[in-house]
Amino acid sequence: MKKLTALSLATVLTAGPALADEGMWTFDAFPAARMKASYGWAPDQAWLDTVRAAAVRLTGGCSASFVSTEGLILTNHHCIAQCAADLSSKDKDYLADGFVAADRAREMKCPGQQAEVVTAISDVTPRVTAAIKGLGGEALTKARDAAIAGIEAAGCTDKATTRCQVVTLFGGGQYKLYTYRKYSDVRLVWAPEFAAAFFGGDPDNFNFPRYNLDASFLRAYENGKPVATPRHLTWNPRGPVAGEATFVVGNPGRTQRLLTLDQQEFQREVLLPLQTTLLSEFRGRLIAAGMDDAERKREAADTLFGIENSYKVYWGQARALDDNAFAKRLADNEALLKAKAGRKFGDPWADIAKADVDYRNIALDYYFLEQRAGMFSGLYGYARALVRAAAEREKPNAARLPGYTDSQLPLLEKQLTDATPTYPWLEKMALSFWLSKTREYLTADAPQVKALLGRDSPEALAKRLVDGTKLADPKVRERLFAGGMAAIRASDDPLIRFVLKNDAAARAVRQQYAQKVDAPVTAAQAKLAQARFAAFGAANYPDATFTLRISYGKVMGWNERGRPVPFETTVAGLYERATGQEPFVIAKGYAAAKSQLDLSVPFDFVTTNDIIGGNSGSPVIAKDGSVIGAAFDGNIHSLGGNFGYDPSLNRTVVVSTAAVQQALEKVYPAPALVRELAAR
Amino acid sequence: MKKLTALSLATVLTAGPALADEGMWTFDAFPAARMKASYGWAPDQAWLDTVRAAAVRLTGGCSASFVSTEGLILTNHHCIAQCAADLSSKDKDYLADGFVAADRAREMKCPGQQAEVVTAISDVTPRVTAAIKGLGGEALTKARDAAIAGIEAAGCTDKATTRCQVVTLFGGGQYKLYTYRKYSDVRLVWAPEFAAAFFGGDPDNFNFPRYNLDASFLRAYENGKPVATPRHLTWNPRGPVAGEATFVVGNPGRTQRLLTLDQQEFQREVLLPLQTTLLSEFRGRLIAAGMDDAERKREAADTLFGIENSYKVYWGQARALDDNAFAKRLADNEALLKAKAGRKFGDPWADIAKADVDYRNIALDYYFLEQRAGMFSGLYGYARALVRAAAEREKPNAARLPGYTDSQLPLLEKQLTDATPTYPWLEKMALSFWLSKTREYLTADAPQVKALLGRDSPEALAKRLVDGTKLADPKVRERLFAGGMAAIRASDDPLIRFVLKNDAAARAVRQQYAQKVDAPVTAAQAKLAQARFAAFGAANYPDATFTLRISYGKVMGWNERGRPVPFETTVAGLYERATGQEPFVIAKGYAAAKSQLDLSVPFDFVTTNDIIGGNSGSPVIAKDGSVIGAAFDGNIHSLGGNFGYDPSLNRTVVVSTAAVQQALEKVYPAPALVRELAAR
Repeated sequence: MKKLTALSLATVLTAGPALADEGMWTFDAFPAARMKASYGWAPDQAWLDTVRAAAVRLTGGCSASFVSTEGLILTNHHCIAQCAADLSSKDKDYLADGFVAADRAREMKCPGQQAEVVTAISDVTPRVTAAIKGLGGEALTKARDAAIAGIEAAGCTDKATTRCQVVTLFGGGQYKLYTYRKYSDVRLVWAPEFAAAFFGGDPDNFNFPRYNLDASFLRAYENGKPVATPRHLTWNPRGPVAGEATFVVGNPGRTQRLLTLDQQEFQREVLLPLQTTLLSEFRGRLIAAGMDDAERKREAADTLFGIENSYKVYWGQARALDDNAFAKRLADNEALLKAKAGRKFGDPWADIAKADVDYRNIALDYYFLEQRAGMFSGLYGYARALVRAAAEREKPNAARLPGYTDSQLPLLEKQLTDATPTYPWLEKMALSFWLSKTREYLTADAPQVKALLGRDSPEALAKRLVDGTKLADPKVRERLFAGGMAAIRASDDPLIRFVLKNDAAARAVRQQYAQKVDAPVTAAQAKLAQARFAAFGAANYPDATFTLRISYGKVMGWNERGRPVPFETTVAGLYERATGQEPFVIAKGYAAAKSQLDLSVPFDFVTTNDIIGGNSGSPVIAKDGSVIGAAFDGNIHSLGGNFGYDPSLNRTVVVSTAAVQQALEKVYPAPALVRELAAR
Repeated sequence: MKKLTALSLATVLTAGPALADEGMWTFDAFPAARMKASYGWAPDQAWLDTVRAAAVRLTGGCSASFVSTEGLILTNHHCIAQCAADLSSKDKDYLADGFVAADRAREMKCPGQQAEVVTAISDVTPRVTAAIKGLGGEALTKARDAAIAGIEAAGCTDKATTRCQVVTLFGGGQYKLYTYRKYSDVRLVWAPEFAAAFFGGDPDNFNFPRYNLDASFLRAYENGKPVATPRHLTWNPRGPVAGEATFVVGNPGRTQRLLTLDQQEFQREVLLPLQTTLLSEFRGRLIAAGMDDAERKREAADTLFGIENSYKVYWGQARALDDNAFAKRLADNEALLKAKAGRKFGDPWADIAKADVDYRNIALDYYFLEQRAGMFSGLYGYARALVRAAAEREKPNAARLPGYTDSQLPLLEKQLTDATPTYPWLEKMALSFWLSKTREYLTADAPQVKALLGRDSPEALAKRLVDGTKLADPKVRERLFAGGMAAIRASDDPLIRFVLKNDAAARAVRQQYAQKVDAPVTAAQAKLAQARFAAFGAANYPDATFTLRISYGKVMGWNERGRPVPFETTVAGLYERATGQEPFVIAKGYAAAKSQLDLSVPFDFVTTNDIIGGNSGSPVIAKDGSVIGAAFDGNIHSLGGNFGYDPSLNRTVVVSTAAVQQALEKVYPAPALVRELAAR
């Protein structure tokens, strides 16, 4: 459950009064009374404060938590897979073989990774709404972005250790400033074998029962030393108890639970079919490339995992919208809100419908030329970011594109300059794929396509750009970033020149989008938020925004077409499910340790907590505040959770601390880590 | 525009009274009065008879026509591409380089190809409806299939030269016996280079303007000699005239113009997303396999073409159903018919809706285990056909599965025993794809998936089956076919054994489909047909069934988002559009001949004729009965033609005889052919 590919649709308000266990609540609005009514108990402020202080966000798109006083971080294996791959070479494959740091000195820095802990949340709604009052069209989005940039810049003057982020909640109903303590030196401590973490592979992903040790440990460093983290979760290596209350604390990436029906139709008819077919084709290319070539297979593994994961997410979302009962519930929600609101807030549904017509007209241009330009090519991503960062930094902070303001530049710089491997064959495949799909969807006759390709084929152009560019070298990127626009203009790097040449066209379609879609939708959503507050009061939670949330629920299975699915699996099941063939091969560690293991130890389990992609790695916390697992997946029904939560079906899938403890002791032994986790 | 992959949805009645130029008419019901009213002229019976006698159906899924007295057949290049590939080797690539037979002795037999000409059409409706009267469920489909098998067996006693086929029209409103003269020795005479036939490749496919010499010549042989074809079309190598009347005579494969709204929803929500994602992923695999391997690229080219073509067809269909205006027209049609019919014919819409619920429950099982079992694997197709043919031939003719009755066995035997190359790597890729997708969609926990895979992975099983089978050898297939069930049971061929082992499960889901879907839908559609006849009379045409139809229309461009698209292109445009990079490379022949060519010669043109996949190769005929082109494509709007015809947008794309004549004279010179075509 990686954070979903961020689409630029603004977040929107949640649909109706929350159902049992529904909700991704902000820490400043935890529904204690509501929980107490269902569970006879709810956490107090001290409990919430402790948990919040231990909650970690990973900038790669995951969640995590501190679990020792020395900066030790629990997260999922799939959240460190990119790091393990980046640190690997032909001779040493940490992704496949796992990694146990023999001592602290051998903990290895993850490129591009940053850990962040929320230290303050403050309401800046009046300042933003004052800035956009009475505005429309592009003036609105510009004023909003400028206000946000200003607030963020003023909020975090110490850029080395803090990060400020204004979060838009309730589709513009609230703006909040989140302040983070950040740690930009994050090191890999312990990782199991890929085959143990991802047993069952794509076929089992989003299915349950599962048998996955999808857990790993990182450590936050500062000035070369482990960070002191006195406020952390207590490690509790026990199995789950049926019906016990559980909390998931993490950063759900994005939900779209109050898209209007028009916006849902857009998802269903335009974006979801586009995404699923594009991901399917590139998935096919990656699989075939690795079929007779073990090295390429390894090099593409993490990209392929991400693509298969996203594909399934979008596929599940599409099937949810195609489900009549599910769709009817969403339609009923809209009808209810419309009936309650009357004309008091204008007709925001009609405003959005109008903007959607415009969106349909520019959707493909916006998608291929701006929003997803370069697609899976990391080198293109570098080039685009370098060119834009140079151009934007010449403007005042308030006038820059989102992503390039002063508060955002430090992370961008880190991501641009950290060393990560690039694979030329994969870059060529990715770049030529983007170019060929752009031509396919916009047609060979479109002027923008002619401008991109000239007389080249997608394949020939991709080859020329990848063979010619020096951007795989972090030193080159560092120099270009530092050199600003002068360095960019002077560069003869073909990829830089390619991006420069086409940037005006990309910005033009971005501007069209801002004016015709983002601005009217933002204005309409603010009205919808007002209608919603008026109708249902504050008993609601905002859509997910990859910021810290807490969800409460309980350990519980569900009924799958009349058949009960038990709430947990045991280690014994792993050996029963194995076939000896990928992806059902028992990891070497588990094969070797079998005779020493207690096979009745709980492995994975499910809870009713309401989560979504981005929650991967979230601690699953018991009533006493101890951690009993890490969320790593949802069941297949949870994918519809993007649009709505169904308490009878949606389930969070968790790797149990009991299974991790067993692995730390007997499968991938790490005695120092066992001691550190046990320390009180 | 290959014939679409045949889905088992029965054909249904057309929607409302036909619009201007709409209609794929049967030859026994040409709407002469209607055409005369629009065009001031219509063909008489003699005209129709001559044209019908010259019309050829190719069993590979295409249409064609006789254009000389000596069995010469005009069709599309993409209709002979498989043949050209099959006849090629590492040393000689007829697909890429083209082929000109220096003399008749060097014309080369196309494996698996058969040409068929309709000689009689008779109405057998009373016999079939009498056989199914009062029946329902599986009894209905069995009785219907038995009646059809009996009629076909009685109709064609000379199996060497005739073929009988009962065609279900108007969803069961009519059953007609088509008798064909068949020619099972069809040879390749002339083919241009692939780069000339398919210039613009997939990006230009279903787009216009186009610059494609998508034409080829075959010749029908019998007893080693060219067949005498005194009734043929006159070759007329002139360009089209704006507004002139044109007829397209050929075999549209399948339309679904009166699916009920429930059935359209099923297409839109279940089948089309499934097809587009599956085709996308396999497309990606094929592209990647050929990326750094020219030999594999060549070997997979025709499969890839078919997949990209089908993908675009399904994509276009999905987008048509997602188009609000288009969907509204279809909904209005249903409402109109419902209003006219009242309850006089029961409620066939509700009957279909009920069957659709059942269909949704078994759709994935049916698709993966039966309907599309083996998917793109030719070897699996052989094994399945051999096993089923053996089992079915032990039953009386009337009790066999469709496809294995006496009237159908000769073509099956030819297709099983003709020599065609197989590529083990491609077979493994295809078979493992099918197995892995079956596991993905049915889940690893499904008993049928466990039965298919055992403890193997899709890749390992595919490797074992393909490496072990001898079915690539036509002699082996011939022996197994001849040996019947005894030979099949005695065979230790792993692919035969694999199919045998899983056939009962596949037949079980087939039976479920027959009982729960096919039977009630057939019964309901017969009622819909009655309702339709009652409401709109006979002024209608049946949905396409890959049988002979005639469509009238005219040479005319269209407006694409306000911009007029001219009705024709010229040879000059080819040179302007070329970039020097695939797929926009000028074919060697055209590059060399440029200075000798009149660049103003018309190349491709569009007409309003109503066609669909299967019409590829159809002669485009002028008022005087002469042939002025071969239909090879539709514009992008024509893909919605599966569900409905839009006269303002749907266009047939045609390669002009003028361009073919120029090529025969100067690009790929064939002087004997020029003389043969000119002979009167």
